[in-house]
Amino acid sequence: MHVGCWTDVEGKEVAEAGAAGVTIRVLMGENVGAPNFVLRHFEVAPGGHTPFHAHPWEHEVYVLSGKGRVKRADGAAEVGPGSFVFVPADEEHAFENAGPGVFSFLCVIPSTKACLR
Amino acid sequence: MHVGCWTDVEGKEVAEAGAAGVTIRVLMGENVGAPNFVLRHFEVAPGGHTPFHAHPWEHEVYVLSGKGRVKRADGAAEVGPGSFVFVPADEEHAFENAGPGVFSFLCVIPSTKACLR
Repeated sequence: MHVGCWTDVEGKEVAEAGAAGVTIRVLMGENVGAPNFVLRHFEVAPGGHTPFHAHPWEHEVYVLSGKGRVKRADGAAEVGPGSFVFVPADEEHAFENAGPGVFSFLCVIPSTKACLR
Repeated sequence: MHVGCWTDVEGKEVAEAGAAGVTIRVLMGENVGAPNFVLRHFEVAPGGHTPFHAHPWEHEVYVLSGKGRVKRADGAAEVGPGSFVFVPADEEHAFENAGPGVFSFLCVIPSTKACLR
């Protein structure tokens, strides 16, 4: 068993093209021997956003704080603390900060290609 | 893409032997076509707890609110908002409310036996 706090994990700036003001912390993945899926913590600064992109694996997202907007090809949805978002494989998406404070959320992805369709 | 709020999902009492005062909501699983892992929301009432048990799949837990205690065979750890807990397959564990308010957390599990070791 591994017990920690998100603030114990060093945050890293997401350098992917199209990202702005995004910090990632991998809470549970290879660091704890997680075999099937990886739980990451994201903070998006005011005005920031993740890339608008698609990839062949899904996201399961739970919003922790702040006000955000989830963009998709045909529009966008407002989200806040307690919102959850399922993004299927291959669907375009981006997460934007839509408020004055930090927008933070958890995002779970498969850990290995063996788990990808 | 599916966007919702945890309060939109009907809670169900966990009836498993050894559980007391535990409400579960499956936020993302078969309901949204999630292929690999299931994200569940738990509320544990004051004085309540999940069963002390083990099973052949892992947990990835993130604490949302309240004060809790994670029991394992050789002791226990205190947790609160922002704590995360990785429980490997086959390790005994229980989550107890250790405070006066509701203790709530997210818990991710593999969705299919194909993802179990």
